[in-house]
Amino acid sequence: MMIKITLPDGAIREYASGVTGMEIATSISPRLAAEVLAITVNGEVFDLGRAINSDAHIKLHKFDDVEGKHAFWHTSAHILAEAVESIFPGTKFGIGPAIENGFYYDIELPDGRVLSENDFDDINKKMLELSQKDSTVTRKETSKADALKYFETKGDYYKTELISELEDGTITLYSQGNFTDLCRGPHIPTTGHIKAIQVLSLAGAYWRNDESRKQLTRVYGISFPKQKMLEEYLLMLEEAKKRDHRKIGKELELFHFSPKVGMGMALWLPKGTMLRDRLEGWLTAELKKRDYEMVKTPHIGSVELYKTSGHFEKYGKDSFQPITTPQEGESFMLKPMNCPHHVEIFKARQYSYKDLPYRMAEFGTVYRYEQHGELHGLTRVRCFTQDDAHVFCRPDQVKDEFKKIIELVMFVFKSLNFNEYKSQISLRDPENPSKYIGTDENWNKAEQAIQEAAEEMGLKPTVEIGEAAFYGPKLDFMVKDALGRTWQLGTIQVDYNLPERFELEYKGADNQMHQPIMLHRAIFGSMERFIAVLIEHTAGKFPLWLTPQQVVLLPISEKYNDYAKKVLELLKNYDIRGQIDERDEKIGRKIRDNELKRIPYLLVIGEKEEASENLSVRKQGQGDLGAMSIPDFADLINKEIKEYFNN
Amino acid sequence: MMIKITLPDGAIREYASGVTGMEIATSISPRLAAEVLAITVNGEVFDLGRAINSDAHIKLHKFDDVEGKHAFWHTSAHILAEAVESIFPGTKFGIGPAIENGFYYDIELPDGRVLSENDFDDINKKMLELSQKDSTVTRKETSKADALKYFETKGDYYKTELISELEDGTITLYSQGNFTDLCRGPHIPTTGHIKAIQVLSLAGAYWRNDESRKQLTRVYGISFPKQKMLEEYLLMLEEAKKRDHRKIGKELELFHFSPKVGMGMALWLPKGTMLRDRLEGWLTAELKKRDYEMVKTPHIGSVELYKTSGHFEKYGKDSFQPITTPQEGESFMLKPMNCPHHVEIFKARQYSYKDLPYRMAEFGTVYRYEQHGELHGLTRVRCFTQDDAHVFCRPDQVKDEFKKIIELVMFVFKSLNFNEYKSQISLRDPENPSKYIGTDENWNKAEQAIQEAAEEMGLKPTVEIGEAAFYGPKLDFMVKDALGRTWQLGTIQVDYNLPERFELEYKGADNQMHQPIMLHRAIFGSMERFIAVLIEHTAGKFPLWLTPQQVVLLPISEKYNDYAKKVLELLKNYDIRGQIDERDEKIGRKIRDNELKRIPYLLVIGEKEEASENLSVRKQGQGDLGAMSIPDFADLINKEIKEYFNN
Repeated sequence: MMIKITLPDGAIREYASGVTGMEIATSISPRLAAEVLAITVNGEVFDLGRAINSDAHIKLHKFDDVEGKHAFWHTSAHILAEAVESIFPGTKFGIGPAIENGFYYDIELPDGRVLSENDFDDINKKMLELSQKDSTVTRKETSKADALKYFETKGDYYKTELISELEDGTITLYSQGNFTDLCRGPHIPTTGHIKAIQVLSLAGAYWRNDESRKQLTRVYGISFPKQKMLEEYLLMLEEAKKRDHRKIGKELELFHFSPKVGMGMALWLPKGTMLRDRLEGWLTAELKKRDYEMVKTPHIGSVELYKTSGHFEKYGKDSFQPITTPQEGESFMLKPMNCPHHVEIFKARQYSYKDLPYRMAEFGTVYRYEQHGELHGLTRVRCFTQDDAHVFCRPDQVKDEFKKIIELVMFVFKSLNFNEYKSQISLRDPENPSKYIGTDENWNKAEQAIQEAAEEMGLKPTVEIGEAAFYGPKLDFMVKDALGRTWQLGTIQVDYNLPERFELEYKGADNQMHQPIMLHRAIFGSMERFIAVLIEHTAGKFPLWLTPQQVVLLPISEKYNDYAKKVLELLKNYDIRGQIDERDEKIGRKIRDNELKRIPYLLVIGEKEEASENLSVRKQGQGDLGAMSIPDFADLINKEIKEYFNN
Repeated sequence: MMIKITLPDGAIREYASGVTGMEIATSISPRLAAEVLAITVNGEVFDLGRAINSDAHIKLHKFDDVEGKHAFWHTSAHILAEAVESIFPGTKFGIGPAIENGFYYDIELPDGRVLSENDFDDINKKMLELSQKDSTVTRKETSKADALKYFETKGDYYKTELISELEDGTITLYSQGNFTDLCRGPHIPTTGHIKAIQVLSLAGAYWRNDESRKQLTRVYGISFPKQKMLEEYLLMLEEAKKRDHRKIGKELELFHFSPKVGMGMALWLPKGTMLRDRLEGWLTAELKKRDYEMVKTPHIGSVELYKTSGHFEKYGKDSFQPITTPQEGESFMLKPMNCPHHVEIFKARQYSYKDLPYRMAEFGTVYRYEQHGELHGLTRVRCFTQDDAHVFCRPDQVKDEFKKIIELVMFVFKSLNFNEYKSQISLRDPENPSKYIGTDENWNKAEQAIQEAAEEMGLKPTVEIGEAAFYGPKLDFMVKDALGRTWQLGTIQVDYNLPERFELEYKGADNQMHQPIMLHRAIFGSMERFIAVLIEHTAGKFPLWLTPQQVVLLPISEKYNDYAKKVLELLKNYDIRGQIDERDEKIGRKIRDNELKRIPYLLVIGEKEEASENLSVRKQGQGDLGAMSIPDFADLINKEIKEYFNN
């Protein structure tokens, strides 16, 4: 029997039923066959060797696809396990998945041995050797009894625990070389694709994420189809480590975490507060130009509010628990979202169609519970401040409002030197209309409006069908940082749900009451996460207009502290901000320490400077700029800031 | 036997044991005897007729003392009850205390009758009649059995409930005319002192503040020793009603309370947010000039933090309850205070004696549970933002820091036109040193420093011995508003406790570790309360530099909306802020509505204005100022602001 295979470009080819992904790739081009790693068949990712038995839409994946990388790294995890087992026979294995960048395997060495960095070389050598054998990776469906028997015989008690919870008939094993693993797949066809593979680091990980169970060793690794790609990745990792916002945040005294206050809740130190306040102030000024109105709301709301909004159900046992009070039946929640508060502000008065759009903005703090182990610097926190806004508008205003918000997003990205960004439109699945709230007419209108707005603003968004939230379609923005890493930032979402639940209304030109549409939008996303991204993007060298300290004055001895104070006051008149390094240290040490703190300009103050009333100026990364008068220096600074915004 | 009576001025007089307050007053002067209402004997307030049986320090109270007013209004409450009983025989009485301004009695009329405003005239007439009888108020100690019998006979079941919970031997009854009440006193000697007395309002009040018990009618009243005082008071009440910040806040769209978000938690509307942001921005600029460093902290902290600080014990069952999380043993509290968070920031690094003082400031939001019935607009809320700061300093810096803070407080009061203020220093009770934490030496030094600082800054504080907190002495500021009402605002407090509990330290010049002293201070107190006071002080006519809208442009018809937009943009270049009243209303209506909104300047925009490029300017309270060019108008505004700060 013949089946029809539809390629991504719409072309249809006929093959005998039972054809494999590899056979399809070979039939298209031998070169493709040499590079292909996995195949998506009707939305599901398969091994290339697995038979296709009916008509299907397919997509072949090379390493540059997420799906290709995933299979590649998944097989690499098995290679890691095979290598460890051959070096340390009797090792017990937990789980070994592919992750966003690379893979890991949770292991327990025999006889209480503990893996250390000293073992990395041996493992790396063995992994490369196993890869180069170019073993075929084979998939085998098996009965639960057989699977249990196999791993019981091997003594792999973590695997038998996993198998015992699986349903018979769903169990598959994958093998390469001498190693067989319980696995759902998919995997790449042969290990020879892996040309470069390496262990990166170790961590502790409780079995099944349960602190009462045993702690295994999590071995992280990375692999690539080319040696050069590994080298580039390791360089990037090294650079990323230098730019780690947690490290720079500490060096620049921007923020601090105190376990006693609470994990995952940043304390903003004076310099970090200045940075954040400047960012907020700058964005607020832009919002006001664009006719947003600023509001302020408390950080808690009654449970009733969140029952009406529907958030109460979503933030259940896994979340911060409600706050009760001495009054029976009264309880509050830490705000998981700002929207319900803004809706209550909207409801404080009445509206005619002329009063819309109403753009309401707040730097609003929300609280989301994250497991201790999931917390990470400012990027995964338990309390963060969104640059949140809600636009209440008529259906005919959606397109225009989207265009205005897109303009703002692009303005902000450009102003902060995020020159590469992508966008994605998420639409509903037209085959599942019952999944969504809101009328067909409004959905169609809004989806069209978003697409037209994006096009008219010159965006080239990818469009994902079925990725919309149940309450409305949306447009998301992702930026690339200086290391090429992608970060999700801004979002614009249409919401038909809250206006319905809170019974919002305005009086139309027809004198009838109508329901407004609500847009949610954030540009930075959260101040915490955005500042983390900004630190890693700039390596802590913030633009001159934004940086907390533009200059530091370095008196060469205590004798010149007073004159330095005078100079600092004069600079303040030119809107230049900074401080004096009054420490009793040699000038060389003062220069070094302040350069490490990424201070853009250092001003050495000594006898010559006091006598001449000139400044000796050093610029970060450029060294000595020579002597100049205070007005000339102010010009220099203000020109640099002006040029920054003109670029 | 003779006893020694010491007067407030230190003079000692001898009297026979058993002498009464009234006899002492009479012996001093007949005029005093005519005015005196109560007496404090060794710290306890007595009736004037009560015998004094041992040596005592005394103070005689007239109506201008709090103690005198209290007795006066307490007796007035009994007069109210007597009047109600005579008009509605069979009325049941709850409690009837003196309050800050006047008195109330909780009553239940017989046969399910409900008191209404229509009854006020009758009650007022009867009260005055009873007062004018000049009945003597007599005190009688009684046994529990006799007291129970008396009120049981009368059928006064609320009173019998109260008596049944009292200990025998502690029960006193007070009588005047035909009315006897269970009461601890003290009372004024005769009812004739009450020359003016009046019922003010009614409210519902659950018996014993318990919602499951019966709701009684709370009858509020006021009384004075002179008719003229009552008239002045009623005028003030009327003016206060007009200035009620809840009323003006609604009219000016400053803030809103939504029961769904939560009672007692303000939602700041756009104009209120502008007002608050301007106040915060202005104070922040002043703080930065004075070398404060701004920080930002989350609104929750772990229970452990508050156990260390000692706040956990203080905010118990009566408070917002702790927030638990999915992790066993982990729990957080809504911040009742900002200090522990600031202490954790302080602890993030090390300090030498040269690094102090460290002045750390935050507009920090705290949460305090108040009973529903206690909430009142912005003055009694459940969530408020303090203009909080903590100064960590050496013992030898306390005086200088106090002087700097006093300077700031005086600057702020002057800038906001609070021209009358008082201050009070609270010192420890030297006879109870064990009540206080911190060394004698530090207390002595700090108390002396505060007193010297206050004197050197020209304050004339009252000094209250024994009023210091257990953790340190303090200085409080009270302002008088335009109606002569007093509001407690700023406070400066020394704290030896938190540095001890958190083991704070710095390295001294002697290379040894020392404990810094912590000063708590707030100027506004809370933003919510301060804005309430500011609204009532200014009747919503905020100073021009602070007001959210300096101008409103009034196009005389839709035709001029576009030109109005152009003018508004031009005004923005001069830092003048405002909006356009684009409503389709007659110009007269627009002027009236915007004058009601206390907009300082109204600009009428029509054909003449567009042609001449001039503005037609109307000023709040002054009417038409005629035509002027935009630059001239900008000058006018900026001059008015400058003059405001120069006054």
